[in-house]
Amino acid sequence: MPVPERIATFDNDGTLWAEQPMYFQLLFALDRVKTLAPQHPEWKDKEPFASLLKGDVKRALAGGEPAIFQIVMATHTGMTTAEFEQTVKDWIDTAKHPKTKRHYTEMAYQPMIELLAFLRANGFKTFIVSGGGIEFMRPWTEKVYGIPPEQVVGSSIKTKYEVRDGKPVLVCLPELNFIDDKTGKPVGINSHIGRRPILAFGNSDGDQQMLEWTAAGSGTRFMGLVHHTDADREWAYDRTSSIGRLDKALDEAQAKGWTVVDMKKDWKVIYPFEK
Amino acid sequence: MPVPERIATFDNDGTLWAEQPMYFQLLFALDRVKTLAPQHPEWKDKEPFASLLKGDVKRALAGGEPAIFQIVMATHTGMTTAEFEQTVKDWIDTAKHPKTKRHYTEMAYQPMIELLAFLRANGFKTFIVSGGGIEFMRPWTEKVYGIPPEQVVGSSIKTKYEVRDGKPVLVCLPELNFIDDKTGKPVGINSHIGRRPILAFGNSDGDQQMLEWTAAGSGTRFMGLVHHTDADREWAYDRTSSIGRLDKALDEAQAKGWTVVDMKKDWKVIYPFEK
Repeated sequence: MPVPERIATFDNDGTLWAEQPMYFQLLFALDRVKTLAPQHPEWKDKEPFASLLKGDVKRALAGGEPAIFQIVMATHTGMTTAEFEQTVKDWIDTAKHPKTKRHYTEMAYQPMIELLAFLRANGFKTFIVSGGGIEFMRPWTEKVYGIPPEQVVGSSIKTKYEVRDGKPVLVCLPELNFIDDKTGKPVGINSHIGRRPILAFGNSDGDQQMLEWTAAGSGTRFMGLVHHTDADREWAYDRTSSIGRLDKALDEAQAKGWTVVDMKKDWKVIYPFEK
Repeated sequence: MPVPERIATFDNDGTLWAEQPMYFQLLFALDRVKTLAPQHPEWKDKEPFASLLKGDVKRALAGGEPAIFQIVMATHTGMTTAEFEQTVKDWIDTAKHPKTKRHYTEMAYQPMIELLAFLRANGFKTFIVSGGGIEFMRPWTEKVYGIPPEQVVGSSIKTKYEVRDGKPVLVCLPELNFIDDKTGKPVGINSHIGRRPILAFGNSDGDQQMLEWTAAGSGTRFMGLVHHTDADREWAYDRTSSIGRLDKALDEAQAKGWTVVDMKKDWKVIYPFEK
């Protein structure tokens, strides 16, 4: 029996930007720090939490990746997976984008939604392959992209099976399991999907190896990059951005003839609510 | 948009037994040791390889899990994922079951194949959740069970992305990544599927936590165990078997009213070739 469906993988940066350069999962984490602060009196004197609680996000994040790591561990662990899922759902239902005042789930790119639907109508099985947290994305990818939880690949923390009060739970441990970014993306694709995509779309250097991995298969392939070139309707950034940098992958796309979408020139509509 | 499909998870012990008590993946590993021996002259004096090469499997495995671990690492790593996949395919195409002289892929249980097809025809998405190696199962689960590679969950080793001669590869590292057994099964289900099954079938204590995890969801659930009771047509073993033991899970099934299939009494046909 032949394997019937073709594989397509997409980074999910359609809804990632809250306030450039800040991923909206980080905004979720910052809101969680405020909510959890009463249970952590020690945070008043401990960075990066002290600055965060004073509203100085810039200073809190000045510590770079180790600071972000501390924030993620403090806000994504110490509860069960079911509790975390509910926390994400509650936040997604209420949080609004600071600029558009829309829910983040309203801010997936219209062309990406259309392409995903087109591919599925033509024998493709579509996957999200993101550097974001898998447990953070799964509660809303079905609604936003039509992609069910089992077709989401992302970064993760370790979990542990326990029976609490006679009921089995999975506890989120303060330990990284997997970083689904850069060279991690082909590893995550192999681990979760076990087949090589024939089409992949990304928008940053974090997607470069996913595109290389896709390109290395036999037969016809499609590798695509979205280039954020529209400062008015969205954002314009590439080679010098500290987060979401698009530099080496852009060079490789140009050298190898991969498709590069110029958001400003090529997209009539960016968000569904503009229609 | 509602998530459309129900989740069903199955251990894959339908094809596991080569010669009780030995899983057929171990037989694959033993054959690999013989093939690789010329490249490893040091194995002549090093256990468990020395005994294996003399044909004394029992003595080689006397070292228990550490010995098995050494054999698996020596035979499943040091190559790319593509090379390993080809090795599995070649072996599966040629190896025969010592008792039936059939290919292992002909020895999936007929009732399991029928149930999987019935579930898929009724809105279920079916998954294999096995203690076996994910890269060992994926090359043949589609053909045998109608389950594509992305719906296989299993134990794994770590892999690493590298570019060799300008071509990207994933290298299999001699390091365990995940053991998909016992308390690992709900962890693997959560990591790969991200949804709780409403139906699960197993046949050993390695499946106990998967069944507990399935049972703990709301609404109607189905938890099932296959009890190997037929020494003539297959094997009869349970509470005292050193591999594939069914003891605690059988007690829990009886206490909680889970379905227990008595292979001898309940199955008219075991293997497809008996029809």
